[in-house]
Amino acid sequence: MSTQVDDELESRSEEFDLLDALKSAIDAGDEDRARQLAGRMLDDDALELLEDLNGRELARLFVFLGEESLGQLLTRLDHRDAAAILTRMSVAQAADLLEAIDPDDATDIVQVLNESNPESVESILVEMESSEAAEIRELMPYDEDTAGGLMTPEFVAVFPDLRADETVTALRKVADEISNVQYVYVIDREEHLLGALSLHKLVLSQPYTQVADLMSTEIWSVRADEDQEVVARIVSERGLLALPVVDDENHLIGIITHDDISEIIEDEATEDMERLGGSSPLDVPYLRASPVLLFKKRIVWLLVLFFAQFITVSIQTHYQDILAQVTLLAVFIPILIGTGGNVGSQTVSTLIRALAVGEIQTRHVFRIIGKEALTGVLLGVVMGCLMFGRAMLVGEEADVNLAVVVGLTVLVLTTWAATVGSILPILLSKLRMDPAVVSAPFISSFVDGTGLIIYFTLAHRILDL
Amino acid sequence: MSTQVDDELESRSEEFDLLDALKSAIDAGDEDRARQLAGRMLDDDALELLEDLNGRELARLFVFLGEESLGQLLTRLDHRDAAAILTRMSVAQAADLLEAIDPDDATDIVQVLNESNPESVESILVEMESSEAAEIRELMPYDEDTAGGLMTPEFVAVFPDLRADETVTALRKVADEISNVQYVYVIDREEHLLGALSLHKLVLSQPYTQVADLMSTEIWSVRADEDQEVVARIVSERGLLALPVVDDENHLIGIITHDDISEIIEDEATEDMERLGGSSPLDVPYLRASPVLLFKKRIVWLLVLFFAQFITVSIQTHYQDILAQVTLLAVFIPILIGTGGNVGSQTVSTLIRALAVGEIQTRHVFRIIGKEALTGVLLGVVMGCLMFGRAMLVGEEADVNLAVVVGLTVLVLTTWAATVGSILPILLSKLRMDPAVVSAPFISSFVDGTGLIIYFTLAHRILDL
Repeated sequence: MSTQVDDELESRSEEFDLLDALKSAIDAGDEDRARQLAGRMLDDDALELLEDLNGRELARLFVFLGEESLGQLLTRLDHRDAAAILTRMSVAQAADLLEAIDPDDATDIVQVLNESNPESVESILVEMESSEAAEIRELMPYDEDTAGGLMTPEFVAVFPDLRADETVTALRKVADEISNVQYVYVIDREEHLLGALSLHKLVLSQPYTQVADLMSTEIWSVRADEDQEVVARIVSERGLLALPVVDDENHLIGIITHDDISEIIEDEATEDMERLGGSSPLDVPYLRASPVLLFKKRIVWLLVLFFAQFITVSIQTHYQDILAQVTLLAVFIPILIGTGGNVGSQTVSTLIRALAVGEIQTRHVFRIIGKEALTGVLLGVVMGCLMFGRAMLVGEEADVNLAVVVGLTVLVLTTWAATVGSILPILLSKLRMDPAVVSAPFISSFVDGTGLIIYFTLAHRILDL
Repeated sequence: MSTQVDDELESRSEEFDLLDALKSAIDAGDEDRARQLAGRMLDDDALELLEDLNGRELARLFVFLGEESLGQLLTRLDHRDAAAILTRMSVAQAADLLEAIDPDDATDIVQVLNESNPESVESILVEMESSEAAEIRELMPYDEDTAGGLMTPEFVAVFPDLRADETVTALRKVADEISNVQYVYVIDREEHLLGALSLHKLVLSQPYTQVADLMSTEIWSVRADEDQEVVARIVSERGLLALPVVDDENHLIGIITHDDISEIIEDEATEDMERLGGSSPLDVPYLRASPVLLFKKRIVWLLVLFFAQFITVSIQTHYQDILAQVTLLAVFIPILIGTGGNVGSQTVSTLIRALAVGEIQTRHVFRIIGKEALTGVLLGVVMGCLMFGRAMLVGEEADVNLAVVVGLTVLVLTTWAATVGSILPILLSKLRMDPAVVSAPFISSFVDGTGLIIYFTLAHRILDL
């Protein structure tokens, strides 16, 4: 995976240069320079610098860039950042900005504002054109992680008896509002979704053909309460350009466009990675996360695993007599449980991901467990021999029995870790729980505890203690 | 993240039922049933069952489904699976199938075949329609992880003096070949890319307008050797429907369609997760990975960390006299280094992901380190107090000094792990290396070694050993 390529000279000071330069340009009334710098911020992924502008500067920037341009910049920011900027602007300008961007993006920003300041939201909506404000009000009740939270009410729908040339005329009429049409949807008089007609087909059709004869009736649609992950999977697996959203009675209420989907796929992967690492998902961009938030997102799992690992203390005090007899047993504990944890971590990360993208299903369970167990054995044989060798070098004289115990523990541990690491995610999936609960720290801690028991049991038997 | 919803009754036997049923339908010549079962395999994500059909069965399935349908099913499989199926079919049927699917998908399959069996590839290409075979030959030299490996040569390009109505006629002419047009590209007589015209704009234009007056000249394009990750980022960040691919002299040689992009984003995330777990990326679907492959992908990092952790053995033998004096010190080692490893794991997973999706850049380094260090302190204070409490309960009588050592170690370790976990990925990124090298096992092993040193040093000082 390639890294972010940063300029060698790039440093904190450069970032401030860009911000200072923009402030100067705004103060000097240099419209072109301001526009150029804003574009530079966009290219450099440095749009969050806009948050450091005060209300007066933002107001002037609005005048320089216009609501279309500034609106587009806002949609590229995280919603909370955009909302923060909006609160610093006048109601009139905020209203203009929201009118200039797509209703689904506008609604995301408004929903954030509404959490902290519903009165300001009301005053902005009242200031907007009533039809635009109505669209936002319509979308606001939907949870942002659902189809309803992703959809836009700006779509083109026609009745089935309309002719192809009349449809083109209709498209021309709404072209100012709706500029990026992929499909024309076909509805009946009660607004039930009947079918969809691609622009390509429309272009090639004979002018007097009825839409009913051109449309495709076998189309995918989702309910407004559908989870965004399901939506993303439908759209990406079938390569759709847009997905209609219907209510319980199949009335067409909005469409989800493909550009929203990449972001969902990326966000879901981010969540999965954070879970794999043992933390709860942040749900905000990292830079917006305060130490307190990071603390809250991490402490829960840390405590769970911490308490679970208390058992390692108990296990070792239980086996204290063995440890006293062969004090060298203790020095291998970190490397043994560390290696077991690493193998477990490798296994769960591969399997959790494979489950998430649908490469495996629970019906493959036996095949998978068998494969992982065998892999664990292969790894364990190699590492076990190496461990044996290392153990022979410890202490004044080589203790073959100790070395055998340690080497054998590695073999058993890697096989155990790989097996457990394959069973747990699939088991959770079968129980309709989130397999990502089995994070890398989880499996490491699990191996820590069980690994010690395995180790001391082997020591007890082989060393005859 | 929602799980794969599997039927309660679903089991290995059901899978074989589906396969057996298909085999029976094929043997019985029941075309409709075969089609129905194949569709069922598609919906159930069970297409890989097709690999269990022998050559005769596949040949008959080809007759039942037709090359279009079977071809579509093949494109939904992993390329290697599709190639395996193709080798079992006659050259004539393989040629028909490849002709029926998009050239970029066909090339992916052919490239796989070419690795193992170039002669069979040649015989298939010779059997195909020469223009179709030529397209594949054209695409074959491109590495599959680049723009060239993603692009299709099936696009519509017109000269700038063409009129809108003539363009529609041209689209109609190629409609059988190219059925999913988003943009019409505009080239000069030497095939240099001049601009692009969206279908939407074409539909709304006056018939006699020249394309040159309708097209957009400020369009994104990529070179054929551009990395697929960069391509995915450009397409998804700007919501493009298609991206033209040019050579060094700006000749238009192909286009990349948006449906390829979701897959790339997903694949890149899968790679990242596997690396985070401490394994090298599989690059094949999990079910295709043999134990030997899994072994190969995991053993390298395991060995690196294994040898790195030998130091824990040395450290403990070095401090053996301290351990002998206070034997209880040893029982806390697993939980201490385990907790440190967990904190480190949480940090690196969050940061590696944030770096990957561009949420943070190296210029944010000081801010990030400060934040993580503070978070580590917060976590460490809470966990340190709990550790102190637990340590007081160990042994016949509470040893306050020991409990202080253990509790303090937790605090220092969590702060250390969070700080190191934030520095390393950013440092690697700055050095233009892949930050995902700092996997969860890496940071755990790092914390294991350094953690022991910290622990014994604190014990040495506080317990005055």
